[in-house]
Amino acid sequence: MLLGAQSIGFKECPVIIGTGNIVGTKEGEGPLRELFDVVGEDDYFGEQTWEAAESNLQKEAVTIALRKAGKKPEELRYLFAGDLLGQNIASSFGLESFQIPLFGLYGACSTCGEALSLASAVVSAYGGYAGAVTSSHFASAERQFRTPLEYASQRPLSATWTVTGSGAYVLGPWAKEHSNAKALAKISGITTGKIVDYGVKDAMNMGAAMAPAAADLIVANFKDFKRTPKDYDLIVTGDLGEVGKKIVIDLVRERGYDIEDKHRDCGMLMYDGEDQGTGSGGSGCGCAATVLSAFFLPRLQKGILKRILFIPTGALLSPISFNEGQSVPGIAHGVVIEHIGG
Amino acid sequence: MLLGAQSIGFKECPVIIGTGNIVGTKEGEGPLRELFDVVGEDDYFGEQTWEAAESNLQKEAVTIALRKAGKKPEELRYLFAGDLLGQNIASSFGLESFQIPLFGLYGACSTCGEALSLASAVVSAYGGYAGAVTSSHFASAERQFRTPLEYASQRPLSATWTVTGSGAYVLGPWAKEHSNAKALAKISGITTGKIVDYGVKDAMNMGAAMAPAAADLIVANFKDFKRTPKDYDLIVTGDLGEVGKKIVIDLVRERGYDIEDKHRDCGMLMYDGEDQGTGSGGSGCGCAATVLSAFFLPRLQKGILKRILFIPTGALLSPISFNEGQSVPGIAHGVVIEHIGG
Repeated sequence: MLLGAQSIGFKECPVIIGTGNIVGTKEGEGPLRELFDVVGEDDYFGEQTWEAAESNLQKEAVTIALRKAGKKPEELRYLFAGDLLGQNIASSFGLESFQIPLFGLYGACSTCGEALSLASAVVSAYGGYAGAVTSSHFASAERQFRTPLEYASQRPLSATWTVTGSGAYVLGPWAKEHSNAKALAKISGITTGKIVDYGVKDAMNMGAAMAPAAADLIVANFKDFKRTPKDYDLIVTGDLGEVGKKIVIDLVRERGYDIEDKHRDCGMLMYDGEDQGTGSGGSGCGCAATVLSAFFLPRLQKGILKRILFIPTGALLSPISFNEGQSVPGIAHGVVIEHIGG
Repeated sequence: MLLGAQSIGFKECPVIIGTGNIVGTKEGEGPLRELFDVVGEDDYFGEQTWEAAESNLQKEAVTIALRKAGKKPEELRYLFAGDLLGQNIASSFGLESFQIPLFGLYGACSTCGEALSLASAVVSAYGGYAGAVTSSHFASAERQFRTPLEYASQRPLSATWTVTGSGAYVLGPWAKEHSNAKALAKISGITTGKIVDYGVKDAMNMGAAMAPAAADLIVANFKDFKRTPKDYDLIVTGDLGEVGKKIVIDLVRERGYDIEDKHRDCGMLMYDGEDQGTGSGGSGCGCAATVLSAFFLPRLQKGILKRILFIPTGALLSPISFNEGQSVPGIAHGVVIEHIGG
């Protein structure tokens, strides 16, 4: 059912019946190390190139999610997938073997929210099962967006650290799955983001570039669903990092809502910034995707969390747009995820 | 309603109530020259870079489509958009000013089919209005995928010519729009493609890389909808060109269907290959999008065509995947478009 200006509230809530995540070595040394399904022994994941390694991350995450959901690839009607690389090659080369009808997505680091939004909308409306998967890889992203690792360039503290990892989800229809013991959570609604451009031009400060989009999304969600921060246990952004966190809290406060107590950021949960030298926090399509999968979904399943607003955030830059002096617009996609029952 | 393995047949068919297209100089000298809404005076479209020019194409196409549909940007719930450039920058920088909730897509040259598929699915299920827009630009694509124009590299005859152009669509719900005099056609179903990889490694022969995906999609559509070539007036691929056309006809024939009489290819309609030196035909996200908009939709509106299967085809390569010696997998997305009434 369409709500307000940017949201859908589902009459038939899709159910997340399986999730899988896999991360790299640095993520495996961080605070969430015990929670991931797989931590790689190195960051090549058995491949010769960083890009192929990232493809393998997606393949592995989907394989784990399918196994936990008890589903075969041919039981999924659709796979919604994306990554940060030009022309989505991590997805193209990682997912071919599943032979699932594919919708390729690009929303930068917001893609996990975009994929869950569209998968939810299609499953709620048409039934059947769908998957969502996104990934990022520190080394393929540095080569794509900044400088290859071999250049050993220095990074400002405002820079975020692209997560090496992939998270995948299998969604099924409420009628068939709400009483499934494997069910992790339901998706009760989505809020879809607009491009928000505050004119930030610093590719090393993406938290500042994305925070205005996150703030807009949060306020739109409150208005569309007629909610306030009290209606959520947590409001979880994707990868704003320490710099973006302050900005989003301030921007939302200016619009009349205080989210300071409720706000968490996946990028800040991923690493111990001081010990691990990761700057402002983790980022990338794989950041929100793995932290939702490994950290938040188990808490939603157990009922420790009843309802969260999950908002992966994306910075819409490319090497070409950056070199041509363009700004870095942001976008965010919101997904309302709830404990099933009680 | 889910059909077969890969399709949805809509109970409430979304209606295309407006479309807009804009092309570059070369396209404006081709056989369809009289049919386009706008032909640029040069290929910069008032900008300083090819990428900004492509962004302007999307902005202009959406503006025309909205005007023809009699809709304001804020009346669209969603915009489904994509292009060929890394990180979809043509869309990111072309569409910000509309402030429409955005789903960024990447399906290479199949993106027009992907955008129409998802826009249809969402409009049919949830009501409201949605837009779909894709673009490509010869110069930005050559720089992205092959060599900058200034290098004056030679091209084999199998190479296609990336169309400079953008096509946009505004879709509305059947209940409100089927009797609208502006209505151009209805979308009665979609068939969603899988990645198909025959191991083609030649980025100058994308027709061969994409034809297997198109063939798979056509056969899947026939099976899911229980149809044969007789049930379609035309089967229209996006940008297979002369090389790919032969392959797709052969591959579909091997599976028991003869589509030779019914098959058309947007890329072959766009240019006069011999006079214009465009090789195998036109290609790019802007090819299928502008030819559907300028050529096929008016014929569907008038009832000259009653039902077509429209299948933009994409080659899933990137400069990095090509340089790393990867193959060029293909994907195709099918949209069934029909005359309204009679």
